[in-house]
Amino acid sequence: MRLDASMADDLSVVNAARVSFATSSSELTDADLGLIKFLMRERHGTPFEHNSFRFHIKCPLFVAREWFRHRIGSFNEYSARYSKFDGEFYIPERDAVRSQVGKPGAYTFETIEDEETAQLLIDKIAETNLLMYGRYESLLKQGVAKELARAVLPVTMYTQFYWTVNARSLMNFLSLRTDQNALLEIREYASDVESYFAAEMPHTYAAWIENGKVTP
Amino acid sequence: MRLDASMADDLSVVNAARVSFATSSSELTDADLGLIKFLMRERHGTPFEHNSFRFHIKCPLFVAREWFRHRIGSFNEYSARYSKFDGEFYIPERDAVRSQVGKPGAYTFETIEDEETAQLLIDKIAETNLLMYGRYESLLKQGVAKELARAVLPVTMYTQFYWTVNARSLMNFLSLRTDQNALLEIREYASDVESYFAAEMPHTYAAWIENGKVTP
Amino acid sequence: MRLDASMADDLSVVNAARVSFATSSSELTDADLGLIKFLMRERHGTPFEHNSFRFHIKCPLFVAREWFRHRIGSFNEYSARYSKFDGEFYIPERDAVRSQVGKPGAYTFETIEDEETAQLLIDKIAETNLLMYGRYESLLKQGVAKELARAVLPVTMYTQFYWTVNARSLMNFLSLRTDQNALLEIREYASDVESYFAAEMPHTYAAWIENGKVTP
Amino acid sequence: MRLDASMADDLSVVNAARVSFATSSSELTDADLGLIKFLMRERHGTPFEHNSFRFHIKCPLFVAREWFRHRIGSFNEYSARYSKFDGEFYIPERDAVRSQVGKPGAYTFETIEDEETAQLLIDKIAETNLLMYGRYESLLKQGVAKELARAVLPVTMYTQFYWTVNARSLMNFLSLRTDQNALLEIREYASDVESYFAAEMPHTYAAWIENGKVTP
Repeated sequence: MRLDASMADDLSVVNAARVSFATSSSELTDADLGLIKFLMRERHGTPFEHNSFRFHIKCPLFVAREWFRHRIGSFNEYSARYSKFDGEFYIPERDAVRSQVGKPGAYTFETIEDEETAQLLIDKIAETNLLMYGRYESLLKQGVAKELARAVLPVTMYTQFYWTVNARSLMNFLSLRTDQNALLEIREYASDVESYFAAEMPHTYAAWIENGKVTP
Repeated sequence: MRLDASMADDLSVVNAARVSFATSSSELTDADLGLIKFLMRERHGTPFEHNSFRFHIKCPLFVAREWFRHRIGSFNEYSARYSKFDGEFYIPERDAVRSQVGKPGAYTFETIEDEETAQLLIDKIAETNLLMYGRYESLLKQGVAKELARAVLPVTMYTQFYWTVNARSLMNFLSLRTDQNALLEIREYASDVESYFAAEMPHTYAAWIENGKVTP
Repeated sequence: MRLDASMADDLSVVNAARVSFATSSSELTDADLGLIKFLMRERHGTPFEHNSFRFHIKCPLFVAREWFRHRIGSFNEYSARYSKFDGEFYIPERDAVRSQVGKPGAYTFETIEDEETAQLLIDKIAETNLLMYGRYESLLKQGVAKELARAVLPVTMYTQFYWTVNARSLMNFLSLRTDQNALLEIREYASDVESYFAAEMPHTYAAWIENGKVTP
Repeated sequence: MRLDASMADDLSVVNAARVSFATSSSELTDADLGLIKFLMRERHGTPFEHNSFRFHIKCPLFVAREWFRHRIGSFNEYSARYSKFDGEFYIPERDAVRSQVGKPGAYTFETIEDEETAQLLIDKIAETNLLMYGRYESLLKQGVAKELARAVLPVTMYTQFYWTVNARSLMNFLSLRTDQNALLEIREYASDVESYFAAEMPHTYAAWIENGKVTP
């Protein structure tokens, strides 16, 4: 993942809330910082929309599927209808090999302890990826259209896309996807997104953390 | 697919455009029909939004992925994180076994003529589905969490979801997804959606067809 | 205000959350009611979107201005560009004649106690409405286009519009517009909207109230 | 009006469409320019969304009312609930004093020819503005809350707001608001917006013009 471009700073929040002409100062005053905290706490969300982050993301398809559920933002994804898929697949790290405990609505997840079992499971997933890629290539060779041949590919396949989003929608994404109940694999990506957000809008980020990551 | 519920008729278009109190008549006048045609032709789109269609859809995941790109509307999808996938997969019909001809941006598709080849390809896809489902079940048996085990499933797997949408957004969906350049598999679903739309809002539908399926 | 049409019940929330085929029963089970409470508490908002309310609203322009800020929903408004405005204006009730106390961000409002003063203020606003309507008509008579003549009309003028919205967006509207810090005049309209919502989706409404009117 | 900030260039359109890593070159190739034209012509709209324009706008309230109908974008407006309105009003220029000819749905507008009449009408509107501002101030002096006193102000009053929007939504705005059937006063603002767009994304702009200003 990388941040392709951004138009984002804390000053834009203050200026939008005040609808005053932008101050020439690049320093935020104490009153400005107080205003950001106030807006966050009272959930006045619109001043946090006047900025933009453009990301280029590469992730497994089962992660992308959750990402694309977020409707306030723009997406352009690589299409396996028109281009041949290059064969890069997700293989879980050791710590990601997990079992679920409990009932639906109240699942928790535990890393599978036994080393040998865990390694066997990783190998099995890796081997399945290769097997399916072989079948995909075989279908292509037999003349099947790319858009049909890709139907046999598993959701471990990597996809990539551009995502452009404002800070308010981004905070909503982070609230949901950095939560401990979120899918492990998307949490790692969300954590990277969070770092970029914190770097570009540090005071907004601090106020959001202070407010328990509630979307304003 | 089925239409779960709807709140849709041609009269709502006319009333919204006129912002008059709803007439008690259930019959549209000639002036009303002229107004619908005018709104469609001039692309005054908002009067077509005051209605709602709720669909329950079951389709392969690679079709659902295109569907969820449409942001003006509401989705709730079955989650393979919490429930075990039941093993229903897409297998192409004879006519859907196709090759692509031409260059990206200008592809056309042709049914693979040779009967024996086509049948072999269908069998191969069907067999792959079974193979992968076996591996999915095997991972589950070995204690892998559902949300991780499902990662080996191919995008031929069926998913299901609720989709609620207004006629304007629905026309945009149909413009793109009934087009001859759209993915064959989604065109069949879009064609069913189109039938429901035509039945509920016949005059709006007729005006849209007359206008070349351009979204108002 | 009137509810022109709706497609809304509590069962749709449960069905969307479960993505199961609609039960034929019209009775919600205890498990269903528990699910609605769970979704509301955990702020799983999407199952509350699969419904639709269509309102026909008539209100002063300064109230409509706040209403139209809500972007998730559909609006069609009467246009004073094309039709002559009929001269109906807002005149505050006795209890609405108020002064503000405190500082920006922390205003409170108090009814103006003195009867005579209050009546004079009401008369002044009423008289201003008439005066401006006279000038509007005079400009029209002198041949000025409707769209320009209406520019002298005050924001007390009544407008009317169709508004179609789902329960999730409606709850967001109500959270903001029934709040004690909201504009007095919009609170009365919001209260009517709230009644319709409570009548159509009583269990969803009860869960929302129990959860402190936080938008899911 | 001024452009407060932007994150917009033609290269972002090409990169989003290709979902390739951004080229280091700042020069677009001939193939890139062809791709922009193709996307515009075929109405593939999403690649035009990965950019952002932030405007600070000051305009009469009857113009702002049309502006805020555009839902894909972000707004923060000056509030006359919390701050005293400063008394700046719209007064039509000589050429804007117009009458309407024809029927609803087919109006055309003609400048009022007679110099004396036109000047009288301008004076009448200007004088009405002053009269109403006097009444507003008088209500404030008598202790009426700002949010109620402002109700007597005419829609000629100036408001100001921040507007952040992407190029696709901006093109939709321009298609509607630079059209010869659009309100004269908003056309002038839209024309300024168009200039900023043309300056930031010249090739996208050229392709859009070539395509008859149809929103992709």
